[in-house]
Amino acid sequence: MGSLLVKNGTVVTSSDEFIADIYAEDGKIVEIGANLQKDADMVVDATGKYVMPGGVDQHTHFNFKFGDAVVMGWETTTGAVAGGTTTVIDFANQEIGKSMKESVDSYVENKIEGKACCDYNLHTVVFESKDEIIQEIAKLPEYGISTCKLFMAYKGHPQHCDDDTVLKALMTAAPAGVTIMTHCENAEMIDVLQKQCLAKGQTEPFGHAVSRPPIVETEATERAISLAKLADAPLYVVHVTTEGAIEAIRRAQLEGYPIYGETCSHYLTLTTDNLAKPGFEGAKYVCSPALRGQEDLDALWVAVNQGVLNAISSDHCGFNYGVHKQQGKDDFTMIPNGAPGMQDRMQVIWTYGVAAGKISRQKYVELCCTNPAKNNGIYPQKGTLSIGSDADILIFDPDYEGTFSVENSLQGVDYNAYEGMAQKGRVEKVFLRGEFVADCGKYVGSGACGKFVPAKPFARAYQ
Amino acid sequence: MGSLLVKNGTVVTSSDEFIADIYAEDGKIVEIGANLQKDADMVVDATGKYVMPGGVDQHTHFNFKFGDAVVMGWETTTGAVAGGTTTVIDFANQEIGKSMKESVDSYVENKIEGKACCDYNLHTVVFESKDEIIQEIAKLPEYGISTCKLFMAYKGHPQHCDDDTVLKALMTAAPAGVTIMTHCENAEMIDVLQKQCLAKGQTEPFGHAVSRPPIVETEATERAISLAKLADAPLYVVHVTTEGAIEAIRRAQLEGYPIYGETCSHYLTLTTDNLAKPGFEGAKYVCSPALRGQEDLDALWVAVNQGVLNAISSDHCGFNYGVHKQQGKDDFTMIPNGAPGMQDRMQVIWTYGVAAGKISRQKYVELCCTNPAKNNGIYPQKGTLSIGSDADILIFDPDYEGTFSVENSLQGVDYNAYEGMAQKGRVEKVFLRGEFVADCGKYVGSGACGKFVPAKPFARAYQ
Amino acid sequence: MGSLLVKNGTVVTSSDEFIADIYAEDGKIVEIGANLQKDADMVVDATGKYVMPGGVDQHTHFNFKFGDAVVMGWETTTGAVAGGTTTVIDFANQEIGKSMKESVDSYVENKIEGKACCDYNLHTVVFESKDEIIQEIAKLPEYGISTCKLFMAYKGHPQHCDDDTVLKALMTAAPAGVTIMTHCENAEMIDVLQKQCLAKGQTEPFGHAVSRPPIVETEATERAISLAKLADAPLYVVHVTTEGAIEAIRRAQLEGYPIYGETCSHYLTLTTDNLAKPGFEGAKYVCSPALRGQEDLDALWVAVNQGVLNAISSDHCGFNYGVHKQQGKDDFTMIPNGAPGMQDRMQVIWTYGVAAGKISRQKYVELCCTNPAKNNGIYPQKGTLSIGSDADILIFDPDYEGTFSVENSLQGVDYNAYEGMAQKGRVEKVFLRGEFVADCGKYVGSGACGKFVPAKPFARAYQ
Amino acid sequence: MGSLLVKNGTVVTSSDEFIADIYAEDGKIVEIGANLQKDADMVVDATGKYVMPGGVDQHTHFNFKFGDAVVMGWETTTGAVAGGTTTVIDFANQEIGKSMKESVDSYVENKIEGKACCDYNLHTVVFESKDEIIQEIAKLPEYGISTCKLFMAYKGHPQHCDDDTVLKALMTAAPAGVTIMTHCENAEMIDVLQKQCLAKGQTEPFGHAVSRPPIVETEATERAISLAKLADAPLYVVHVTTEGAIEAIRRAQLEGYPIYGETCSHYLTLTTDNLAKPGFEGAKYVCSPALRGQEDLDALWVAVNQGVLNAISSDHCGFNYGVHKQQGKDDFTMIPNGAPGMQDRMQVIWTYGVAAGKISRQKYVELCCTNPAKNNGIYPQKGTLSIGSDADILIFDPDYEGTFSVENSLQGVDYNAYEGMAQKGRVEKVFLRGEFVADCGKYVGSGACGKFVPAKPFARAYQ
Repeated sequence: MGSLLVKNGTVVTSSDEFIADIYAEDGKIVEIGANLQKDADMVVDATGKYVMPGGVDQHTHFNFKFGDAVVMGWETTTGAVAGGTTTVIDFANQEIGKSMKESVDSYVENKIEGKACCDYNLHTVVFESKDEIIQEIAKLPEYGISTCKLFMAYKGHPQHCDDDTVLKALMTAAPAGVTIMTHCENAEMIDVLQKQCLAKGQTEPFGHAVSRPPIVETEATERAISLAKLADAPLYVVHVTTEGAIEAIRRAQLEGYPIYGETCSHYLTLTTDNLAKPGFEGAKYVCSPALRGQEDLDALWVAVNQGVLNAISSDHCGFNYGVHKQQGKDDFTMIPNGAPGMQDRMQVIWTYGVAAGKISRQKYVELCCTNPAKNNGIYPQKGTLSIGSDADILIFDPDYEGTFSVENSLQGVDYNAYEGMAQKGRVEKVFLRGEFVADCGKYVGSGACGKFVPAKPFARAYQ
Repeated sequence: MGSLLVKNGTVVTSSDEFIADIYAEDGKIVEIGANLQKDADMVVDATGKYVMPGGVDQHTHFNFKFGDAVVMGWETTTGAVAGGTTTVIDFANQEIGKSMKESVDSYVENKIEGKACCDYNLHTVVFESKDEIIQEIAKLPEYGISTCKLFMAYKGHPQHCDDDTVLKALMTAAPAGVTIMTHCENAEMIDVLQKQCLAKGQTEPFGHAVSRPPIVETEATERAISLAKLADAPLYVVHVTTEGAIEAIRRAQLEGYPIYGETCSHYLTLTTDNLAKPGFEGAKYVCSPALRGQEDLDALWVAVNQGVLNAISSDHCGFNYGVHKQQGKDDFTMIPNGAPGMQDRMQVIWTYGVAAGKISRQKYVELCCTNPAKNNGIYPQKGTLSIGSDADILIFDPDYEGTFSVENSLQGVDYNAYEGMAQKGRVEKVFLRGEFVADCGKYVGSGACGKFVPAKPFARAYQ
Repeated sequence: MGSLLVKNGTVVTSSDEFIADIYAEDGKIVEIGANLQKDADMVVDATGKYVMPGGVDQHTHFNFKFGDAVVMGWETTTGAVAGGTTTVIDFANQEIGKSMKESVDSYVENKIEGKACCDYNLHTVVFESKDEIIQEIAKLPEYGISTCKLFMAYKGHPQHCDDDTVLKALMTAAPAGVTIMTHCENAEMIDVLQKQCLAKGQTEPFGHAVSRPPIVETEATERAISLAKLADAPLYVVHVTTEGAIEAIRRAQLEGYPIYGETCSHYLTLTTDNLAKPGFEGAKYVCSPALRGQEDLDALWVAVNQGVLNAISSDHCGFNYGVHKQQGKDDFTMIPNGAPGMQDRMQVIWTYGVAAGKISRQKYVELCCTNPAKNNGIYPQKGTLSIGSDADILIFDPDYEGTFSVENSLQGVDYNAYEGMAQKGRVEKVFLRGEFVADCGKYVGSGACGKFVPAKPFARAYQ
Repeated sequence: MGSLLVKNGTVVTSSDEFIADIYAEDGKIVEIGANLQKDADMVVDATGKYVMPGGVDQHTHFNFKFGDAVVMGWETTTGAVAGGTTTVIDFANQEIGKSMKESVDSYVENKIEGKACCDYNLHTVVFESKDEIIQEIAKLPEYGISTCKLFMAYKGHPQHCDDDTVLKALMTAAPAGVTIMTHCENAEMIDVLQKQCLAKGQTEPFGHAVSRPPIVETEATERAISLAKLADAPLYVVHVTTEGAIEAIRRAQLEGYPIYGETCSHYLTLTTDNLAKPGFEGAKYVCSPALRGQEDLDALWVAVNQGVLNAISSDHCGFNYGVHKQQGKDDFTMIPNGAPGMQDRMQVIWTYGVAAGKISRQKYVELCCTNPAKNNGIYPQKGTLSIGSDADILIFDPDYEGTFSVENSLQGVDYNAYEGMAQKGRVEKVFLRGEFVADCGKYVGSGACGKFVPAKPFARAYQ
């Protein structure tokens, strides 16, 4: 690796903003200063542009199966990079019959190595509610992993965890400094409602919203918080979407409990109107939790701005419409859950957050870069522009105007959830550990250079 | 039946208070007035005394089994009567393999008729989470029953209901006007905690409190409320004991949801200190939910006074200490859950509520008599002193001072939960449908004269 | 006085409802019973009708001056009676230079005696913030008065009281058992806003709403509550109209403070749309606080139903439109504040409360009859149907349908605030102390028979 | 000026922490990097130490008069510097008969220039509630001032402002981007309570707490917030001390209003116990608002940690005990209000905040340095370590252990409010614009080098 000099940009961190040059060597930031006099292998002029840390997307799903459908794999992380995300934290599902360590190793070896174009860390995910799996949570820090997710939703599926499993996981995780993440939806409510929908002949995509109303998530969030209180453990709630869930988290925080959560770019910008699109079009927007109404959307912006929710992820899940989504043509419960978004996240949040006056640039960096790194124990290597950090650097042009579209997609998916929506500002150049990897939405890197970033336990939720 | 004239008493209803005579004929109140000139079969002078409606205890358990232990039966309702309670609403558990109707009929025929000394209605209780049982809820009004209870606690026992059963029960009950009652404790939390206690060698009665902390109830109450909101159905939460559960109910009421609840006399007067008594003494106070600390107790008084909780019951459950409670000598989880209280309820609440300045006499009548009747669809036949109501009348002496003790007990149980506590005021005379049935704590009735009071659906929770 | 027998009606009190006869002698209720066999001077059949206590209107203004305008006097209380109100509690303004006692005596002698057609009690009102006036509050119980009102609004007018006066009044009142009432509007906010309106040329009636926005009342209510907390005194807030003020009262009640309030019939049914009527029409609706929007109106119905606000009054103030209101033709600040309503209150609240399904009949009696009597220390003589109470009895026909209109008005005012609005149900017959005084909206009494009802101190706010 | 190189320290900003060298030239930070190779006039090794921005104390009072007492002047800012504060924002009281501009100019010329040893900006303070003074608020940005304070307390003193003045000030300030600050205490409550204390003979210092209970501040804070809402203007509440005031600010923030506040070091560490000290000792702790109890203190730590209050100042006011405080020997209302603290603030908050585990180092920098600069429009020149910022740099030794004492004081006051309390960590070296000015608590600068830092309007409260 060589050296990089980014000159004259307006450096934006989660607290500061100032004009400076940034100089990196061997993939690390080594100097930030005024008019640095450096001979660098690459010199970039960022005059009039914002210089920000590479994005950290703490919630992605590659190689995820839903019935017969399998989402796109790690070779599509060029899309993340092109969109300004230089690190993802993906879910490594425990395989039935294997330990979490074996599942992680197998996943890395078979699916990630030689394919990943961005850096990464992994969350483990419990798929068997067995004591030996729960016990293994205490060992995750040895593997460089600091998080473990449990699904409260999906009754009848192996990943579904009852309250006793969630409680035991929290109790095991706390002394080890592992952060438990929960997907909060009440599995039994959904089961009853899905059957009611189908019995009434409501088979189209909108049934997804009908069978997963806000209370389904609010209830499970309240319950997860109670379990965490009882276990005296921190909790991180993934993809929060309802005002009720926000309120539950806020109340817990006010009482002094270490309860945190994230939301995702689509919940901040899309609504149930998308699910109600005519024909089978709504299937593109089938993800769990379901999209919500405008009131919840408004409450989410307040929540991220005030820090009740501390990160925005993509929950990227690359099912295509042409084949995968068609599985549920006659029964919305068979539509693979998930939507693509890793390439759009940074630019969607800039457009509808920063440019729309909803959040400051500092808050943007905090939500999209710094906090995701802190939450997952990979800060300060990732998520900020400080001396010694990886030289993951974005040069952002605030003046660009365009349109989100699948035409520019590198995600390997045949549709874009934000199709046709106006875009303001653009990730112009992306550097990963000092290497130039994306240029105005095109991937220009050397490919498959992504590295595992080991996480430290006792991350942000413990501090 | 003949006629009764109660003269010169201070009549107390849930809204009013005035000096008057009350005249009853054929078991019904027919006149209330000043200086009534009536020839009555019995004339009682109540000068200086309060004249109130007979108490309605909406939560009792007779003939209840816990392992090998069976609580005392209906012949002990002389105790209820002696303590001022003229109507009980008991739990008729569905028997495995039988419909609720069959279970009720069998219960009435074999256990109640010829034994009950007070009037009664019944709650059904689901013991099998089957569709045919749930469907039967819609027919309860035909049987003169307006309520059905489901247990969220007791994992592994037949009466335990998962969320889907509770949700379906609520959905079935609402159009029929049946009020669903829930025992709110998180079964899985308790299971994990009980095993932890036993694994640590904590086998004594106090383990009951350790394994059923307040959050166990608060969580389940929040969940039950969410299920009711989703079902668009009213909900009645039995034996509420925690500040958190009160808060959850209060919030739901503020949002306009028909969510109601009761608490019990022991939760308003006893604390975990009782469970911590030396030796095996604490076993006398093992009931579910567990007794709480002083803060929760204080919050309960505020909640009943402000109407967030609208009734006070006894949750009477007559296990004796000498044999039944000894089952759990070496393992608190084997101690039969429940404590006697039907005879003490009215006098305990007067002493520690009215005489202590915590509630008014009007509120006392509302909580102990009128609302229990309204909640269960047997008002105005029961629960008030109005023209046409049953002549269930108490003459109450506010000046009496004494001590609660098993010595005066007619409950058939070998201990009194309030043993040694000071008593102020006393139920002096009790009339059931105009018949003189108790005199200063002695049963003086003709025995076994209790009648089933048919309930109307769409009771208070629907109004 | 003779005797009265009301037969077969459905008696409604604030807690009960049952079919019975009511018999009164010498102006007092002496018997309530089934099929009373009585020879009465007057016998009325109330089959199919509701029999309720006479209404108590705790907030009226007779003989009130605003600039040159003087509202109608006590001879118009035939209107109150015709509308079902048998007792009013009017404001006896302290006259400059006179003690409160002298002011009350002068008012009774010169304006009330020989004119009042309904019974009455009086609130005193401080018009001079002097120590001797404040000290006199402690003596009010000697005069049969249990309340004293202070105006926080009206900067520059003698009745305006600064915080120190309100605080001293609360401190003086508490040991004497006098209930302090406050008119809560921030006088200085209004002053600034009125001047801004006029400076901008906004002179029409709607300027009244612009210069008295909800925060003006919410702030003053919060402040009055703080003063009451500091003084350790109960507080009664008159004419509450905003969601913010309701929230402030609710929070104080939850914390256990004896803070109470009322609202008025017009705030529950009319909105700022009325103030915005074309021409000078809006002047009819100029009252303080100003009418609010639909959200506040909805919040008020919840507040009265849940008991946060415990009474509904008329704030009757009989300025006419043709002359009085015209004073403010060119300057809304000169429009006399107040609207008539004593005749309509009971029927408006039945129509838009009971018949609309917003409140029960019991709640109706509580809000319009019983609580106003309890709040002001004249219960149980007034406000209920109990043995020994005054025989103030309404026979109410729930099936009547009509229209509110000035045509039927006895109020002596040339307009009706509810003109043209649909009416459901009607006060058919009214008895005052057993005397037949109104028949289907016509006054049929002997005139000027109203009596002063002495109040007891330590009324409801102290209990 | 020359150049400075701080090597190997752990740089702490309000979001980041990393090991780096910092190089400054001509008073500005020009490079931050790993192993910077620079020839600097001064090279300091900070290995094992924290390197942080110079403290910004946004609330000090120099040359303040209380009766005959005048606090110490700007020559004592050597104390601020020795304690790690390189910038203060002092209150420039408007002089009676002069404009704010004239008052500021006179203050700078006569009291500050040639004396100030740290940099500074000024808040204006209204002392005459006149329109021309209020209008001048709009011009403050022209003078390099972005804030104006109004006193709601101090009835009868010229600085006391009624609600109309506060409202007009807010309305005038908002379009100009000036931040209005309010001292929130209800002047009339205090007046009544002070007179009651004195009338009862309670003349000792503890009367200060009795006459200024928490509700005095809570009420005024609620009122100030209402005024700001009405004016549609941001508000900054100074020296918040009560849980109630925190709650009011939190609610307003949740509703989306730009309401902010600070607290002070003494409210976070001292309680009413200090005021209750025997003899006249309590006089040392007489400041307004009064010190509070432990519950309020605990709530303050939560509030600063969660960002409800965004800064910690000293409210430094250097009255001495030997003469000044003695004015109130026989009457606590005559004790000059205020206590010294500018020298201790940074070290007290580190000891009882960071070292005690209550706040993180990032939060410490945010509260004590960055936010005070942002709040007052002097960021990023002050308050952070970024390229182009003034080289105001602290080298902090976390391992030092000592004791707070007047012995080390440069404040010119004869006592220390934290006397005898344990100290952990110490400001070791201080640089002001690159110049070495303090060394282990000793002032080593060249004296009187402080400069005015012009503020920009539309500071943090507007963003």
